[in-house]
Amino acid sequence: MSLVTLTTDFGHSDYACGILHGVIWSIAPETKVVDLTHDVPRHNILAGALVLDRALPYFPGGTVHVVVVDPGVGTNRRPLAVRLGNQFFVGPDNGLVSVAARQVENRGHPVEYFHLDQPQFWLKEVSSIFHGRDIFAPAAAYIARGISPDQMGTRVYDPVQLSLPEPEKTEDGFLAHIIHVDHFGNLSTNLAGDLLREESKVIILAGTARIDGISKAFGDRQPGELVALVDSAGFLSIGVVNGSAQKRLGLGIGDQITVKFS
Amino acid sequence: MSLVTLTTDFGHSDYACGILHGVIWSIAPETKVVDLTHDVPRHNILAGALVLDRALPYFPGGTVHVVVVDPGVGTNRRPLAVRLGNQFFVGPDNGLVSVAARQVENRGHPVEYFHLDQPQFWLKEVSSIFHGRDIFAPAAAYIARGISPDQMGTRVYDPVQLSLPEPEKTEDGFLAHIIHVDHFGNLSTNLAGDLLREESKVIILAGTARIDGISKAFGDRQPGELVALVDSAGFLSIGVVNGSAQKRLGLGIGDQITVKFS
Amino acid sequence: MSLVTLTTDFGHSDYACGILHGVIWSIAPETKVVDLTHDVPRHNILAGALVLDRALPYFPGGTVHVVVVDPGVGTNRRPLAVRLGNQFFVGPDNGLVSVAARQVENRGHPVEYFHLDQPQFWLKEVSSIFHGRDIFAPAAAYIARGISPDQMGTRVYDPVQLSLPEPEKTEDGFLAHIIHVDHFGNLSTNLAGDLLREESKVIILAGTARIDGISKAFGDRQPGELVALVDSAGFLSIGVVNGSAQKRLGLGIGDQITVKFS
Repeated sequence: MSLVTLTTDFGHSDYACGILHGVIWSIAPETKVVDLTHDVPRHNILAGALVLDRALPYFPGGTVHVVVVDPGVGTNRRPLAVRLGNQFFVGPDNGLVSVAARQVENRGHPVEYFHLDQPQFWLKEVSSIFHGRDIFAPAAAYIARGISPDQMGTRVYDPVQLSLPEPEKTEDGFLAHIIHVDHFGNLSTNLAGDLLREESKVIILAGTARIDGISKAFGDRQPGELVALVDSAGFLSIGVVNGSAQKRLGLGIGDQITVKFS
Repeated sequence: MSLVTLTTDFGHSDYACGILHGVIWSIAPETKVVDLTHDVPRHNILAGALVLDRALPYFPGGTVHVVVVDPGVGTNRRPLAVRLGNQFFVGPDNGLVSVAARQVENRGHPVEYFHLDQPQFWLKEVSSIFHGRDIFAPAAAYIARGISPDQMGTRVYDPVQLSLPEPEKTEDGFLAHIIHVDHFGNLSTNLAGDLLREESKVIILAGTARIDGISKAFGDRQPGELVALVDSAGFLSIGVVNGSAQKRLGLGIGDQITVKFS
Repeated sequence: MSLVTLTTDFGHSDYACGILHGVIWSIAPETKVVDLTHDVPRHNILAGALVLDRALPYFPGGTVHVVVVDPGVGTNRRPLAVRLGNQFFVGPDNGLVSVAARQVENRGHPVEYFHLDQPQFWLKEVSSIFHGRDIFAPAAAYIARGISPDQMGTRVYDPVQLSLPEPEKTEDGFLAHIIHVDHFGNLSTNLAGDLLREESKVIILAGTARIDGISKAFGDRQPGELVALVDSAGFLSIGVVNGSAQKRLGLGIGDQITVKFS
């Protein structure tokens, strides 16, 4: 029994995300479908790309990930199916898959892109504003049924790449960038926690605040205290115990965090 | 393996919608259950009816759709099971099924209504305020297991009908009505897109705004622009590229849109 | 095919709850996973405990309930697996399971607690801030696969107990306490409805309001009216027909309701 995940910016108030389940089960009745999240901020391709990148290592081989954050739906942007090692991506060619693809390549696994240009694998009628339902969900269902992406489209070698900021090395540390804010208002950066662990003393400057040292857990500090720790994806993150660092510091995606070793 | 969908106005903050899964799986362990949406606006029967109507064509034969928007729970309104061609509806007799039923009848398929009056197919204890758990979920599970609705209730010929506004033909076009506002603030009307496509020039008057022509996709216009297009259900819809037409125009369900052909 | 439910305070905007599905399916591919709710108010252990307590009777034997409301993650609070009659709990030792455990014991079924201290049943890398992913989801998957909790941890006899307020008997009735506010703003108390039904005349004093008598259903009163009824879990609850008692009365969890018999 194969597995399909759904990640979109459709929200939960409409039937849109529910319909994707129906389309997939109509084609591949034995498939399991799971809603990863439908609350990607609207049209935020980077946020959608990070969901895929972070979720990928925790899903079994054969999983098909449908990611639809698609401001260009109905224009000439290509619909893609992508082989990500032993898993798959289906979605628009706008960079959504690029962060996960780099992760897979860095681990030495193959990544192959296919332009979904074979209408026999789409629904019969294709709306120009809902390719999630009419192209991506059917493609995912056919892959889940065992059809290879290369039968469903033409190989592509120039997929759209998303440029992510990289942390910058400074004289006494790093400049990191906030790339994700979670449900609790924790600010996650692009600085790998491995780079912090070997240093004995770390000072974090975030907005007007200064944090001394990296904590192991929120519970190590008092409620209301600012805390720097390595988040569950392995990156430097700033939080407030039982509170929101986003609200406390007024920082968000794209803002810089200074890390100093003393 | 059969399929049950759930559509309610319960929201996600309680255990109510999760319990429905447990009840169904206790009776029909092989069934798949999918949450279509639990964010129907509270007590909004029309909104619930539209979810069912729009989702129906995308689900496979045998699917059982539980729809619970039920301000009359515990009063003498009847609980129903309805055969919708080769799919099924279970829910209160308050019009929720009527829009989908007309769609099914218009396609030439049979619709049959049954009053769920056989307590052996309910849970043993029935709360007067949660028939979703105690009557509808069990009924759906039994149908999913292959029990015919006519074994579970008495045939009914006078189900409650919901009256939906119809678009009005005018001298030079149509008066359409907004019947749905989606997650993005797009305003969907009751005017079938087919009626627009043959006309070369269309002018849309919505509130104080005028839109010239029907676009194929949001990406055909600039961010912030108002756009008229045919939505994914096939009806005239008004949107704002990367924005909300609901907020921009201050319009909502029930408001009129003027369509002129020149 | 076994069943795992998920209850957390993670919300839906992140990939956190979706990842739990992937972890479980990687270990136990035949398992069904259902999201009970991910909108438990942040760090509100009582609210999480009530979800489990209320949902338990509606799930089949063998179900594994993962509940993660875990302000102490990464500290020395113990991860637990608990046998609840013929169902199971997996989550932190902070009282989350204690309300359901009392229900199970009151029905004469055994409850056994195990400290999940065997790392071979965890993911290989354990983040100090996401035990839901790294310890609880794997443990649930192994239980779903048929491994007994006593193979996965050491028996524990001193689990953390949550103290819930009990209704107080007065000269002419009861003092009840609000312990849950639902999606619609209904105020649920800790007073069992059975204690009301035998009395002919009941007066409810809630904040500045007085309600005469217990209604059977919301539909028995007019829109906007305050109503007292027995909720779907069997407890006295205060609501407003088509409205919110929480907003109307300005009451919330912990506030008292006076019940008088005349």
